[in-house]
Amino acid sequence: MELLQALSWRYAVKKYKEDTVPEDKIRRILEATNLSASSAGIQPYRVLVVKDKVLRKQLSEGSFNTQIAEASHLFVFAAYTDINQNMIDDYMARTAATRSIPVAQLADFKKSLESYLLANTSEANFQWAARQAYIGLGTALIAAATEEVDSTPMEGFDTAQVDRLLGLTEKGLRSCIILALGYRDEERDWLAQLQKVRLPLDEFSLQIG
Amino acid sequence: MELLQALSWRYAVKKYKEDTVPEDKIRRILEATNLSASSAGIQPYRVLVVKDKVLRKQLSEGSFNTQIAEASHLFVFAAYTDINQNMIDDYMARTAATRSIPVAQLADFKKSLESYLLANTSEANFQWAARQAYIGLGTALIAAATEEVDSTPMEGFDTAQVDRLLGLTEKGLRSCIILALGYRDEERDWLAQLQKVRLPLDEFSLQIG
Repeated sequence: MELLQALSWRYAVKKYKEDTVPEDKIRRILEATNLSASSAGIQPYRVLVVKDKVLRKQLSEGSFNTQIAEASHLFVFAAYTDINQNMIDDYMARTAATRSIPVAQLADFKKSLESYLLANTSEANFQWAARQAYIGLGTALIAAATEEVDSTPMEGFDTAQVDRLLGLTEKGLRSCIILALGYRDEERDWLAQLQKVRLPLDEFSLQIG
Repeated sequence: MELLQALSWRYAVKKYKEDTVPEDKIRRILEATNLSASSAGIQPYRVLVVKDKVLRKQLSEGSFNTQIAEASHLFVFAAYTDINQNMIDDYMARTAATRSIPVAQLADFKKSLESYLLANTSEANFQWAARQAYIGLGTALIAAATEEVDSTPMEGFDTAQVDRLLGLTEKGLRSCIILALGYRDEERDWLAQLQKVRLPLDEFSLQIG
């Protein structure tokens, strides 16, 4: 599906059918998300994939978003709550290996990352990491649509509960946005036939100079 | 260009050629960005487009990112520093007009937005709005690549200076990320031939349940 068409086709689905999204589609959506840009390329977040219905039911408790349990899959975008030396070292090692260069050749890049990231508070780094996850979400929404897979991005969930149930805190992660994936139930979804609401282009975007 | 191919083709360009991106391409990239998802659909950010080289030179002062001035265009993603009643009212009016329904029919939706957004601090709302802008950035990066337009997302810039030069503060906006657009100069760009570095898919993404 072409990009503008994919973006027009997608909407935040409210009611899903019971159909399951094939694993090869899930994999391509994750591959696309993994190719997303992130600040300095460091990818300071992870995507947890939850398919199990019982677990998703637990994750949805207290949320008004029934899609968490009713969709086919749930992606949980979780950002690192702190950026540490290990993370930078791992990234340098990965870069050196990918580009077949000695890690010492990355000394300047490493130093600039360290001085930028290690001086920040944990909270500032988490906010920064969460923003990178949202770039990934932007990609995942498009990737799903191009696969003709429906989706629902959701902020309205109990992050502490999700973090606990998925063991994210021990991993140094905190959930920041979740994405249900599946197939829209056009008959039961009141939003399915309604027109997308967007700003006129000349209000959304202003030419200055 | 197909999505995975577009994502693999793009990288954060360091050196641009002098060629100008045609306005129809810029417009399609903005159209795609305007179609991005945002929390509750409220689009709490704007994209400022700066073409003028003199202004971009001023915007780049103090930044190590020469692309700000050297690319063809600059998009400035700016989030609202506060979410107020007017913004919600405008959104309800736009929704009612788009869907040809009386605005009174949106009373419940309006109330839920008010109780969610108007209770937050300005800072919390700005952080939330900035995250929505990053979803838009994710779309813009893909839209540019599918148009075979190169780009560079940048956080390393003087936001106060950019806000002042573009008159954003008076508009209630604060710049959060910028995106240079243009055409890569493969001969002068040291990054052009280097392989993209990404996490192995099974580290980026974990199946839980």
